[in-house]
Amino acid sequence: MKVMIMGMDGYLGWPLSMHLSSRGHEVSGVDNLSRRKNVNETGSWSATPIKTMNERRIRYKEVSGKDLTFYRGDLVEPSFTDLVVKKEMPDCIVHLGEIPSAPYSMIDVDHCNYTQNNNIIGNNNILFAMKDHVPNCHLLKLGTMGEYGTPNLDIPEGFFEIEYRGRKDKLPYPRQPGSWYHLAKVHETWNIMFANKIWGLRATDVMQGVVHGVLTDDMETDDLITRFDFDEVWGTAINRFCAQAVVGHDVTPYGKGGQTRGYLALRDSMQCFTLAVENPPDETEYRVFNQFDETYSVNALAEIVSKVAKEYDLEGKIRNIPNPRLEAEKHRYEPDMKHLPALGFKPKFNLEDELRITLPKLIEYKDRIEAKRDKIKPKIFWSQ
Amino acid sequence: MKVMIMGMDGYLGWPLSMHLSSRGHEVSGVDNLSRRKNVNETGSWSATPIKTMNERRIRYKEVSGKDLTFYRGDLVEPSFTDLVVKKEMPDCIVHLGEIPSAPYSMIDVDHCNYTQNNNIIGNNNILFAMKDHVPNCHLLKLGTMGEYGTPNLDIPEGFFEIEYRGRKDKLPYPRQPGSWYHLAKVHETWNIMFANKIWGLRATDVMQGVVHGVLTDDMETDDLITRFDFDEVWGTAINRFCAQAVVGHDVTPYGKGGQTRGYLALRDSMQCFTLAVENPPDETEYRVFNQFDETYSVNALAEIVSKVAKEYDLEGKIRNIPNPRLEAEKHRYEPDMKHLPALGFKPKFNLEDELRITLPKLIEYKDRIEAKRDKIKPKIFWSQ
Repeated sequence: MKVMIMGMDGYLGWPLSMHLSSRGHEVSGVDNLSRRKNVNETGSWSATPIKTMNERRIRYKEVSGKDLTFYRGDLVEPSFTDLVVKKEMPDCIVHLGEIPSAPYSMIDVDHCNYTQNNNIIGNNNILFAMKDHVPNCHLLKLGTMGEYGTPNLDIPEGFFEIEYRGRKDKLPYPRQPGSWYHLAKVHETWNIMFANKIWGLRATDVMQGVVHGVLTDDMETDDLITRFDFDEVWGTAINRFCAQAVVGHDVTPYGKGGQTRGYLALRDSMQCFTLAVENPPDETEYRVFNQFDETYSVNALAEIVSKVAKEYDLEGKIRNIPNPRLEAEKHRYEPDMKHLPALGFKPKFNLEDELRITLPKLIEYKDRIEAKRDKIKPKIFWSQ
Repeated sequence: MKVMIMGMDGYLGWPLSMHLSSRGHEVSGVDNLSRRKNVNETGSWSATPIKTMNERRIRYKEVSGKDLTFYRGDLVEPSFTDLVVKKEMPDCIVHLGEIPSAPYSMIDVDHCNYTQNNNIIGNNNILFAMKDHVPNCHLLKLGTMGEYGTPNLDIPEGFFEIEYRGRKDKLPYPRQPGSWYHLAKVHETWNIMFANKIWGLRATDVMQGVVHGVLTDDMETDDLITRFDFDEVWGTAINRFCAQAVVGHDVTPYGKGGQTRGYLALRDSMQCFTLAVENPPDETEYRVFNQFDETYSVNALAEIVSKVAKEYDLEGKIRNIPNPRLEAEKHRYEPDMKHLPALGFKPKFNLEDELRITLPKLIEYKDRIEAKRDKIKPKIFWSQ
């Protein structure tokens, strides 16, 4: 299958490119390298040193014998997006090419606008290019479980049937996102739903939980490793906790720590995307997948990181700190997940297993974390 | 009260500026004059010849003795928006400064992106400027009834309480908008709701029906008249039907004509906005107003226009034509409207009354409609 990965240089885009290539798909990709630039802007870097796209592709060719086609350019430019889609004529576009950080979007008006404009317009340009050149192409779009927020109800996969004042209808499930970044993801979800309605574009809108881990089976050498961000802006809670444990800092959950989310190991995320790529929706179908494995509270995450850290003689002392975000710190969290298991998804790596792979690797790069340890403490506040 | 009107040069912005000024409010306004430019781009013009902003303000001063402060600039520029809000320190910002056309947004990728970027980013910039300079200011934001789409349920005002799988919650009512333009309005609604949540900004999000009419009591001479668009891109169904009747063209509803929407006379719209301005929400309150008077199907509109046209010796023959839009042509439409009546809203002009004011005025400008009669027929198709 011809698969085009938007955001090939990113945390997920790079390992997914190799993974799909190793399964025999013809993989091309696009990136504007903005993640490297944006992480640099906030004064941080990836704990794992990552190679340039050219170095990565050359190295991957050496170990696998396979070519990855790469286009450097910006999806926000409609002419560029149109051109690469027309040139590649993909069967599937995996759209991971977005700015992925909630705190980054909360810095100020410019970062809010940059995030919303970049993500919404890039996504629009992909929709129009598909309509014009590959109307049967499958758009596999990365959304986030964060689109739903934390309602006091079960969270279905995208839609729900309800009765209201004695009448019934099936409606898009109301979204209650918690940052300018999460809002942009919701806006894109509505835009995709509309493109599906008017043009019949087929799409899978993936509401993914937080992905953890840094290694996949395709990373035969560290030249092929993916990035691992651990600072307050680009690092997830798990990543920050791991980095803190490695450099002997307290592990610091935000607030009361009852914030509960869905989590998924990197290799299980690859498995999910692969299932979606290889089992496309019907022509003219729009479907939503909730994509996660386990749910944990932030306190539970901290405890598991701390427990596994001790196996490597790290202290991992837990200390809750004031929450820079505005979010419920104790709430219901019961998302459905039926669509991916129906396609055969079987998670293989739980959080503890994955940490026993991630932590030793981070210990190798302890100096790089130490050099940026002041970047872990939160300085961006939601109510600022 | 210090009121700032974003989009002062527009169809609603100009009459509202005069109306609020005549009620004793201190009115300032902002516009980038994009409506004039965008209508010109599509080859059309207003049936009523409209004066420049300078001419309008000078003339209004002559008849009323009152000053209207005007800033020409673009809300998409955060620095400009920040500056005007900081300079004026308004008690209320009425945000009408958006690209308001569904067909315009459907022309191509550039018009889709222009509409979404212009509307979303301009709105974001207002939110940030309010937060930074006037956190107690009331944002009165123009949304549209079109945000809701046409669900098979009653349409409450913004939120609804539901039971799902045995649990209850109050949630934002799911929106199902029908164009890139309507989608942008929905995106802004979510963004405002979030700004309210994190910063406590108070806001009234107005889901307004289609406004009709061209005259208000402040328009003592035609130098003060507002614009009246009648082409396929910028004209509403009523406006197109009126223009067609005036130049002896068939009145042409789209499709089967069962599409039903809420409608409101221009002077009643002024009354609604004034009630909202003068009765702001509580500090930190976000409220949604459904703002309309009557509901009509497109066929019913055509019949009423045709009937009133005959009073002026116009033929007004009705002929349904293929629908360029993708929309339900027969559907339920039962929106609530409780909040504005609770503030004292009493509609004074029904559609027939208003048409007896509008049609004679349009007949005066028959030549200007005749000159652009080829711009009424739809050429922009939703599925193109």
